[in-house]
Amino acid sequence: MTPEEFRRHGHALIDWIADYRAGLEPQPVMARSQPGEIRALLPAQPPAEPEPFEALLADLDRVVRPGLSLWQHPRFMGYFPANSSLASVLGDLASTGLGVLGLSWQSSPALTEVEEVAVDWLRQMVGLSPEWSGVIQDTASTSTFVALLCARERSTGYSMVRGGLQAETQPLVVYVSAHSHSSVDKAALLAGFGREHIRLVPHDEAYAMQPEALAAAIEADLAAGRRPCAVVATAGTTATTAVDPIEAIGALARRHGLWLHVDSAMAGSAMILPECRWMWRGIEQADSIVLNPHKWLGVAFDCSIYLVRDAEHLVRVMSTNPSYLQSSADGQVKNYRDWGLPLGRRFRALKLWFLIREQGVAALQARLRRDLANAQWLAEQVRATPGWRLLAPVHLQTLCLRHEPPGLDAASQGEALDRHTQAWAERLNRSGLTYLTPAVLDGRWMVRVSIGAETTEREHVQQVWQAMQREVQA
Amino acid sequence: MTPEEFRRHGHALIDWIADYRAGLEPQPVMARSQPGEIRALLPAQPPAEPEPFEALLADLDRVVRPGLSLWQHPRFMGYFPANSSLASVLGDLASTGLGVLGLSWQSSPALTEVEEVAVDWLRQMVGLSPEWSGVIQDTASTSTFVALLCARERSTGYSMVRGGLQAETQPLVVYVSAHSHSSVDKAALLAGFGREHIRLVPHDEAYAMQPEALAAAIEADLAAGRRPCAVVATAGTTATTAVDPIEAIGALARRHGLWLHVDSAMAGSAMILPECRWMWRGIEQADSIVLNPHKWLGVAFDCSIYLVRDAEHLVRVMSTNPSYLQSSADGQVKNYRDWGLPLGRRFRALKLWFLIREQGVAALQARLRRDLANAQWLAEQVRATPGWRLLAPVHLQTLCLRHEPPGLDAASQGEALDRHTQAWAERLNRSGLTYLTPAVLDGRWMVRVSIGAETTEREHVQQVWQAMQREVQA
Repeated sequence: MTPEEFRRHGHALIDWIADYRAGLEPQPVMARSQPGEIRALLPAQPPAEPEPFEALLADLDRVVRPGLSLWQHPRFMGYFPANSSLASVLGDLASTGLGVLGLSWQSSPALTEVEEVAVDWLRQMVGLSPEWSGVIQDTASTSTFVALLCARERSTGYSMVRGGLQAETQPLVVYVSAHSHSSVDKAALLAGFGREHIRLVPHDEAYAMQPEALAAAIEADLAAGRRPCAVVATAGTTATTAVDPIEAIGALARRHGLWLHVDSAMAGSAMILPECRWMWRGIEQADSIVLNPHKWLGVAFDCSIYLVRDAEHLVRVMSTNPSYLQSSADGQVKNYRDWGLPLGRRFRALKLWFLIREQGVAALQARLRRDLANAQWLAEQVRATPGWRLLAPVHLQTLCLRHEPPGLDAASQGEALDRHTQAWAERLNRSGLTYLTPAVLDGRWMVRVSIGAETTEREHVQQVWQAMQREVQA
Repeated sequence: MTPEEFRRHGHALIDWIADYRAGLEPQPVMARSQPGEIRALLPAQPPAEPEPFEALLADLDRVVRPGLSLWQHPRFMGYFPANSSLASVLGDLASTGLGVLGLSWQSSPALTEVEEVAVDWLRQMVGLSPEWSGVIQDTASTSTFVALLCARERSTGYSMVRGGLQAETQPLVVYVSAHSHSSVDKAALLAGFGREHIRLVPHDEAYAMQPEALAAAIEADLAAGRRPCAVVATAGTTATTAVDPIEAIGALARRHGLWLHVDSAMAGSAMILPECRWMWRGIEQADSIVLNPHKWLGVAFDCSIYLVRDAEHLVRVMSTNPSYLQSSADGQVKNYRDWGLPLGRRFRALKLWFLIREQGVAALQARLRRDLANAQWLAEQVRATPGWRLLAPVHLQTLCLRHEPPGLDAASQGEALDRHTQAWAERLNRSGLTYLTPAVLDGRWMVRVSIGAETTEREHVQQVWQAMQREVQA
């Protein structure tokens, strides 16, 4: 494709995307595809000869479009929001169009330096001290994994340059909560700690980790000759947006030399609001933090920010320096390849930079406050309506709720209640009006309503609430 | 930004990119920025109020553009090519614009099923049997890391669900070559094997791993009570595009139960040419393969294909299944979150799918053959010109060469020769005419010339060759 063809087809695709975004509201929110249905629309073999771009564009309508759940739909309330704001989409387009790679600073200096600036802007926006430096990773899964590798290497005095984790004789232990994200468990397993060395610290009735229970678990491991290595605290858990007490956990981590990683993938965006910062009180005691601007804040996926206090340690764990990547600028510059797993890096900073500039901090704050108010409004409706129950505090924009009709209480009729919950949620999702996420809490199914798509206004929340009330009667 | 604003600004950005791509040739190939120069152009604090999109676009010219090394420039011959073909750029734009996330099949069915189809097309294009199934990862670094985790867990019978690698008593050993990519070493260290358990298997004079030496190393470890776990063979090493003998290595791997991972990040693209497939003869004996369509083939970064024969094992190592990600389609569909590290996934398949369709297989083959012929042409010139020396076989499109003027032979005047090599390469890169990569081979600096930008024609190779000859006289 020549630049002139790109110009023509690019305009057509931009128009297609503009129409797609403008036309979301009348569409069903959750994809109705059957397994294998999309695959069956495509040829089993690759084409030998070129196809016109118009055919590709037509297949976005014929094949792709019907097979999408619509994450930017104003009534999308599943998982957590992923806003992919249009200014950020353009930042990402600029990145792909420029086609440069970050292997080293020299391989494209702007890629590194704009990332330094944009990440530091975000640091300021969420109220962290200048002690922190950050890097863009793909997802919180990766950021948390890097955190646990850094913890492992700090605890072992860099076992990697000797016999590795497999040569360590005194087992390392990682402390998490049953409400930590699934990626935390995965990261600990992949880092080689082993299931037997992952402690699930008990939580309180608000699903927050109990520091006393953490202290007891650490003491028990120490007494048994094991080495407490790391604790992962969460600001805004996935199931209920619970908030672990970071200050108390941080004090324990300091006392026992544990690495404290804070997963604020979700709540991190809310930290641009000073009134929300109680959620990570004590954050300066952490060793590493992850927050995901690609969720609620609006950066196009993928853009996860990993922040550390000791960048030198991070680089020592992750660095690689073959001769073909050395340049005369080394020593004066950051080489972000040494801040994460991949060697090659996209110019991801552009999509963060574009969003912050096109919106301005004040508008981002106003949008998040709107969503928090919408969540509180819905929480009031739920509390005030017989048969409905809120199951967890509404700290952010996500509600955990259940409809418990007379005669179906959770204690005595749990399985029947589960069937009721799953049935109405499935009906509602299939109806196309919204997309909510059913999940298990304390062994029983409930439904998460996660407000915060960029176009979600009060009226959309009202529509979903009305539909929920209708559906449970069906 | 509303969809209508997006339409307007999107057209402007498309035009900007078209102009950028069309205007590369007169520009200096390597960025001339000084460390900190770009950062200094930007405000230290984020803006409270919105900025007009025109200001962002203007900063692409003022701030970003001068700080880029131009990877799509027809005289870019550094590292390996990263073509980011314009059809693929549009595929990526479609992905970002659609803004959907792959968490599970249900979270956007088309994302999963188009990936299944596009990856299978590529499998056919490179001549692999239907025994292989694949997934898109970000980079080869990640793919190789996943491979070593899978090796570790196969060798230990899933130690992760017990005490982890740290509870294993008989050390696992990984075999690589000194010419393996730096990411292989990094992956083995991060997976917990430890430096002492990474064997650098000797290579022959063409920089290919010696199977006899591998056999001896395995025997020595077995005799010492260690467990040979994995071997990484490379098709197209980074320094010299050397080709490890996969067939012989595969036979050893089978005999001793080692996981064979083949890093064909670079040569993988050439496997669409049947005449190049001798480079991975024996490939069907491997357990995993990585190849990077985001290099020479032309897919916009990042798009690394990780292929396995035993997908069930991969899923068992990488899976995570919290209730909020379960859906009624599970069991009938692929959930690619269980095929890699990140939970959330971009719709990366679109950029691969768009490229293959817009080009057609025949045109991709023709372009790669053009580049192979250009490399052979340059190799002939180098061989025929006194004072110049080729240092490695030219299997693909990369040449390793040195200018050795009379009186500066590598054996007796090595350090003076190194100064000469680094000086002319630096002068040439600073001149802006091209971007070549100096690297160390057998302890001495040499220069890599890696041909294969999409717009590189014979005349560009001629220009670079002339400039090299000029520069060594300076």
